[in-house]
Amino acid sequence: MAELPNGKRSKWTVRASDMANRTHNPIRAIVDGLKLEPNPDKDFIALSLGDPTLFGNLSICEEMRETVCDVVNGMKSNGYGPALGLEFARAAVAKQFSIPESPLTSKDVVLGCGCSGAIEMALLVLANPGDNVLVPWPGFSIYRTLAGSYQFEARGYKLLPEKSWEADLEHMESLIDEKTACIVVNSPSNPCGGVFTKEHLQDICAIAERYHLPILSDEVYAGMVFPGHTFHSVASIAKNVPVLTCGGLAKRYLVPGWRLGWILIHDPMDAFKEEVRQGLMNLATRILGPCTLVQAAIPKIFTDTPSEFYTKSMDVFQANAELIYDALSHIPGLFPVMPCGAMYFMFGIDMDKFVGFNDDMEFVTKLVEEESVFCLPGKCFEYPNFVRIVTSLPKEKTVAAVERIKDFCARHYCGSADMAEGNGIK
Amino acid sequence: MAELPNGKRSKWTVRASDMANRTHNPIRAIVDGLKLEPNPDKDFIALSLGDPTLFGNLSICEEMRETVCDVVNGMKSNGYGPALGLEFARAAVAKQFSIPESPLTSKDVVLGCGCSGAIEMALLVLANPGDNVLVPWPGFSIYRTLAGSYQFEARGYKLLPEKSWEADLEHMESLIDEKTACIVVNSPSNPCGGVFTKEHLQDICAIAERYHLPILSDEVYAGMVFPGHTFHSVASIAKNVPVLTCGGLAKRYLVPGWRLGWILIHDPMDAFKEEVRQGLMNLATRILGPCTLVQAAIPKIFTDTPSEFYTKSMDVFQANAELIYDALSHIPGLFPVMPCGAMYFMFGIDMDKFVGFNDDMEFVTKLVEEESVFCLPGKCFEYPNFVRIVTSLPKEKTVAAVERIKDFCARHYCGSADMAEGNGIK
Ligand SMILES: Cc1ncc(COP(=O)(O)O)c(C=O)c1O
Ligand SMILES: Cc1ncc(COP(=O)(O)O)c(C=O)c1O
Repeated sequence: MAELPNGKRSKWTVRASDMANRTHNPIRAIVDGLKLEPNPDKDFIALSLGDPTLFGNLSICEEMRETVCDVVNGMKSNGYGPALGLEFARAAVAKQFSIPESPLTSKDVVLGCGCSGAIEMALLVLANPGDNVLVPWPGFSIYRTLAGSYQFEARGYKLLPEKSWEADLEHMESLIDEKTACIVVNSPSNPCGGVFTKEHLQDICAIAERYHLPILSDEVYAGMVFPGHTFHSVASIAKNVPVLTCGGLAKRYLVPGWRLGWILIHDPMDAFKEEVRQGLMNLATRILGPCTLVQAAIPKIFTDTPSEFYTKSMDVFQANAELIYDALSHIPGLFPVMPCGAMYFMFGIDMDKFVGFNDDMEFVTKLVEEESVFCLPGKCFEYPNFVRIVTSLPKEKTVAAVERIKDFCARHYCGSADMAEGNGIK
Repeated sequence: MAELPNGKRSKWTVRASDMANRTHNPIRAIVDGLKLEPNPDKDFIALSLGDPTLFGNLSICEEMRETVCDVVNGMKSNGYGPALGLEFARAAVAKQFSIPESPLTSKDVVLGCGCSGAIEMALLVLANPGDNVLVPWPGFSIYRTLAGSYQFEARGYKLLPEKSWEADLEHMESLIDEKTACIVVNSPSNPCGGVFTKEHLQDICAIAERYHLPILSDEVYAGMVFPGHTFHSVASIAKNVPVLTCGGLAKRYLVPGWRLGWILIHDPMDAFKEEVRQGLMNLATRILGPCTLVQAAIPKIFTDTPSEFYTKSMDVFQANAELIYDALSHIPGLFPVMPCGAMYFMFGIDMDKFVGFNDDMEFVTKLVEEESVFCLPGKCFEYPNFVRIVTSLPKEKTVAAVERIKDFCARHYCGSADMAEGNGIK
């Protein structure tokens, strides 16, 4: 920019700050860069969007709707709340997530704007510019967005598709150095739908303990596991490791737009006592908490939601996941990995066996062009030759989508057709 | 922190990041540091809190309550919105604030979490670490909170109580150098209740134009002026200056807890076109917008709120301001400055004329101790020997509070009693 002496600029070009330029949502950046031209003869099916409210088959429970209306009509929740969140809302979150291994009071809860806002505060309190944080790879994009914005490094530890997306522990450990600020764990996970077993979480905690590294556990999909799998919160296992657990209403309660999230402070070693609690308090004053109408509804949301509500959506996710798995594991050239929870499904593509596209970006573009089905390219997670689809659509749509994927792959497949065993990973 | 080779820390002390340590809300820091012990024989009156919903005399309008309930019951607004905000909500904000001098479309609007969130995005897109931003002095504390957090400097330009809190333009201009990123303007203002005239805003715009500096106009109190004064948005005057106007529902609609704010982009010189718009978009992806229940209610909030609703609260603020002014201008040793809008009142204290306290901190502490009336010390705004009180209480409370302030001052005053003319600034 041209500058005159005495600070006088000579013209009107206002630069954006370096931080603004560094802040990127990779999903948006990549998806917006694709040239998507759906087949006009087929209705468009978006398997790309992690918003369970989009398709009309899943909606919030009656009790929750009423609770928020009561709050609005009560007109007692329009004023500022404390920066950390309303005391009774924090107490309700504490009660909901207290377990014998990690008893919580309202003092151990910080409310934030969505789970994203909670993750932002948790990462910001732990990491300085120049530090690194270990994140799952493939993993949810916001960790990288925040790392770019705030100039710490997001180092990806491999998740292993052949082991139902368990973490590669050796790889994780090899990434740790004196600049490592924390380990981010995400189970159940986006984009994989992986659910870590108790033993696996114990192994991760052992690493964290060995290096005295706190864990940031992203549990926005807490409890969202399929029958036969068990959800374990990291705090229930981390006897000797401090954990900031980030969660929210978005997925379990089907209200991502409400932007309510939280941090639970699990601090068995008193490692957060001196600075981290105060640091979270400081950061919370920047934004003054999430919408009080939603905050004030939290206690009744937790007490009044009938258990069938939770199972209903999980049934949908599971039925779709099985349907997709069954279909895809018989499509030559695809490698579906059966998820154990959450609302996503990843499958690999043996690119060498296809003509017409060379990578996941070209695969999804061509699939839209020919079949009007849109999958999220693995590139969004720096995980090429995989794509992510969601399991939250109505069954008919899911059936139609996999049918079209099958036709598409059949047209483009050029490998051998020997598929008797199937090719999925369960 | 003790470190072992290979990144192994030897013990469990987790430091908070430098940013977390740097982030401070001066109001909280100062108020929490006061030892406040109210007089047990008198009911406590808090004149310190800028939350108009606290006292029960002001509440949201019927139409607004119904609108939000309709949104909740409609169950169409539970999903993720775009990071910049829902298109139709942004269009409604654009329509509401369009003026011939600054026509807006939805593309010129970014929604944020409260006006605070909007200010954070606006400052962050304009200022780099090491830059400075000019802010009103005394001024709202969040500018300094954000400056501390993000390592730019908040340079205060003097507001002049003897000129109804106009800015000292010479001082403002003297602060500008090559590191100045923008000028923050706040009219109507917190903590002063000052309202800048058209001519004064023209003078400020002339400075901004001369130095090619964008303006960040904090208009959270837009339209909240007393009869005889006129509200001018900076954008209506800044013909040749780019402006990011920050606003929100908090004050005018009496819903600070709802956390809905916005940025309006006024860009007559195309100075924001190349980078700043994209930069705002980037920053918005970190948080994904405010609560969609409130976003979706915006169009009807703007169209259906009856004009009496706006005047009702202004009548309260004005009646209290006049009552306070009349009483305080006859109290020896106090210097009240009549506000022209917003919901605050500042008065100065001639400390030399009092025994029992030496500064505004001791004044407010002692006043609580003896009279159970709490005023915000000017120190919160780096403006010593002044205090801020709010004009939003019920009339009886305001009357009682000023009566007690009068008694208190009478007890402690030791100057001459020559007060025939009054000592206020109108
Ligand atoms: C793993 C993970 N964490 C956090 C989030 C963000 O949740 P929220 O919408 O509450 O910000 C998501 C959203 O998709 C997610 O997949
Ligand atoms: C001048 C000024 N700007 C911004 C704000 C913040 O508004 P919000 O509560 O919407 O974040 C306030 C709140 O008091 C204020 O006084």
